[in-house]
Amino acid sequence: MSAQPASPRSGRAAILDAIRAAGSISRVELVRSTGLTGATVSTTVRRLIEEGLVVETGRGRSTGGKPRTQLSLDPQARYAVGVHLDQAGITYVIADLGGGVVGRWRTAGLGADAPPAVVQRIADEVRGLLQGIGTPQDRVLGLGVVAPGPLTPAAGMVLTPPVMQRWTRFPLAAALEDATGFPVLLDNDATAAAVGEYWGGSVVPTTAFAALYMGTGLGAGILVDGVVYRGASSNAGEVGHVCVQLDGPECWCGSRGCIEAVAGTAAVVAEARAEGLLPSPASGRSVLDDFATLTRIALRGDVRAEAIMQRSARYVAVAAQALTNLMDLDLVVLTGPAFGMAGSLYLPVVQRRLTASSFARRSHPVRATVSANAPDAAAVGAAALVLQTELTPIRGVRSSALV
Amino acid sequence: MSAQPASPRSGRAAILDAIRAAGSISRVELVRSTGLTGATVSTTVRRLIEEGLVVETGRGRSTGGKPRTQLSLDPQARYAVGVHLDQAGITYVIADLGGGVVGRWRTAGLGADAPPAVVQRIADEVRGLLQGIGTPQDRVLGLGVVAPGPLTPAAGMVLTPPVMQRWTRFPLAAALEDATGFPVLLDNDATAAAVGEYWGGSVVPTTAFAALYMGTGLGAGILVDGVVYRGASSNAGEVGHVCVQLDGPECWCGSRGCIEAVAGTAAVVAEARAEGLLPSPASGRSVLDDFATLTRIALRGDVRAEAIMQRSARYVAVAAQALTNLMDLDLVVLTGPAFGMAGSLYLPVVQRRLTASSFARRSHPVRATVSANAPDAAAVGAAALVLQTELTPIRGVRSSALV
Repeated sequence: MSAQPASPRSGRAAILDAIRAAGSISRVELVRSTGLTGATVSTTVRRLIEEGLVVETGRGRSTGGKPRTQLSLDPQARYAVGVHLDQAGITYVIADLGGGVVGRWRTAGLGADAPPAVVQRIADEVRGLLQGIGTPQDRVLGLGVVAPGPLTPAAGMVLTPPVMQRWTRFPLAAALEDATGFPVLLDNDATAAAVGEYWGGSVVPTTAFAALYMGTGLGAGILVDGVVYRGASSNAGEVGHVCVQLDGPECWCGSRGCIEAVAGTAAVVAEARAEGLLPSPASGRSVLDDFATLTRIALRGDVRAEAIMQRSARYVAVAAQALTNLMDLDLVVLTGPAFGMAGSLYLPVVQRRLTASSFARRSHPVRATVSANAPDAAAVGAAALVLQTELTPIRGVRSSALV
Repeated sequence: MSAQPASPRSGRAAILDAIRAAGSISRVELVRSTGLTGATVSTTVRRLIEEGLVVETGRGRSTGGKPRTQLSLDPQARYAVGVHLDQAGITYVIADLGGGVVGRWRTAGLGADAPPAVVQRIADEVRGLLQGIGTPQDRVLGLGVVAPGPLTPAAGMVLTPPVMQRWTRFPLAAALEDATGFPVLLDNDATAAAVGEYWGGSVVPTTAFAALYMGTGLGAGILVDGVVYRGASSNAGEVGHVCVQLDGPECWCGSRGCIEAVAGTAAVVAEARAEGLLPSPASGRSVLDDFATLTRIALRGDVRAEAIMQRSARYVAVAAQALTNLMDLDLVVLTGPAFGMAGSLYLPVVQRRLTASSFARRSHPVRATVSANAPDAAAVGAAALVLQTELTPIRGVRSSALV
């Protein structure tokens, strides 16, 4: 009897996920950990071995009876490509079925090229990267492509920062599927960063956490008990567009006084430039290049640079607090290239605010950390999202809203 | 085969919920709508009829074969008591199994009395209300008690506004269980208001929505696809404590410049008093009494009163926008006593902001409405939460965090 009959898919996915999580596991332990019947486990495992996804890896320690055959994933059985599109650069990651990153590449950003030309470039770069590493095409599950939101499945990006406006409503997923021949999964870059963090094992499964992502923009991906929080259309977590100054500066999103407009990387760079700390804009230099320069100046102890970044950090802390107070989280991971550079300047300010004034602080502590993988987090997560479609039982994620 | 074996409880709850949602339904239709086997439906329905929860209500229209016996809930079979604790007043609601409100009562607020005395008063008032309506005690499922957060199951309120500070860490649920003899479920008042809205049928089940609750405080309850979003400890939705002025006025929560501190009912009343629009504070008058007076003055066309409320409405609109941008919602319902009075002043300002600058506006519209049940929403929702424990299959709600 079951109120929600499980599809054959979920049994397979549950077994794959249990093997991945355990590293090495016996059939008997699989029955225990998945709740499936012995017959189901046995049939499914046989099929997974035939497909080459699972291998028998010798015998475990005896617990009195005869030692049990251990099962593992064959990490080389499948691969996924993660692609992070950003104005400042395109980042590629190839991950294997075990979640290991076997290749990374970073190329020029979207620039001023027309979307079809960029799509062709991405297809060429993906092909080159796979060939360079020697990954057989038929083992590639697909491309996870992540970009700043808001996104829709059909139209791709539907509202874009000024520098990316030519991408508005370009049918990105379909064009990339045509150009590469691979299935393409499109998602928000901050959501991908959160999935990458979880997938990489740095977050306890029962945590309610946000990956607060600062790159060219500022956003967040949210996972509660391992499930992505997506809301109505998979465009949740846009904490960069919480208003902190009612009549503040205009934001590209159509609002005013957004945290991103007041304290994001572009705002920080503009302020530093106005104070003469950075030279005039140079072609070929992205906002993140300038942010990196400013971070180095601040870390060397320049008081004015430090003050600019402290002010930004206070607003980022407000963003972290808004996330925890609305979503009741117990962890905020600072990630993305900006925190990869300046995490040590931002983290104490964020942690101080969460400790002192997060609303649920007397129910449970709220911790802040900097991701160990901050620069590539979104691309790693993009690959993880694709691997998840093969491995993870669907648990309430509205993946249909984007795939 | 099932990856998540359903408990016997969930079959029973699924059947009860399907009967409630349909109003009247045959056994064959129950099999179709729940996915349970005919044998399970038949056995469970027989037991529910024996318990008096379900009644046979004649025969449906024939569709060619022999007409089918229809099943309905007996609304008088079970009752739940909803109790909303607030500084400004205690609101009681008795709801029957069909969700119909059969009794309402409003008594004095928590005042300065010691918690044990208030608990005794609540127990007396609940008993009086049940006797007055003639509800048999043995048909009462329990008390849903809702209060401002943050809450913990053991300690009750763990951080309280100054006027409620004697309630900090008082073991509210246990004390009320002792005093009334009924099971007590403790939850956040704004969450309850959202559940009440959903339960009352005014919200389409697939909606991602927030009930933005303004009473003495400002908070929100969030439901996505009919499931309460709870986060780490059931203290989500605290949008009144999003910072909109970095160095703004101190808030009782320990932070500064919170939306509630800048634009909640107490801030509005204080501003009106400073402008001479309201008399000095009088004992026995709550903030909501003063807010009601100011609303009447504004609705009569007083320009200064209108300006004060417009300013508050702009910040409430920022709160609604923060909710939609972080949680990706498609509906915000304004509820609670303050919007019950002044909803017509706040709604246009909120809707304008959501239409113009909600981040996902090109993916889907975001609508704002005023609840038809705004003054009693939290108490009605408190009763609905109790009825839900009997009726609704548990779908990911972390109810154990609070019950």
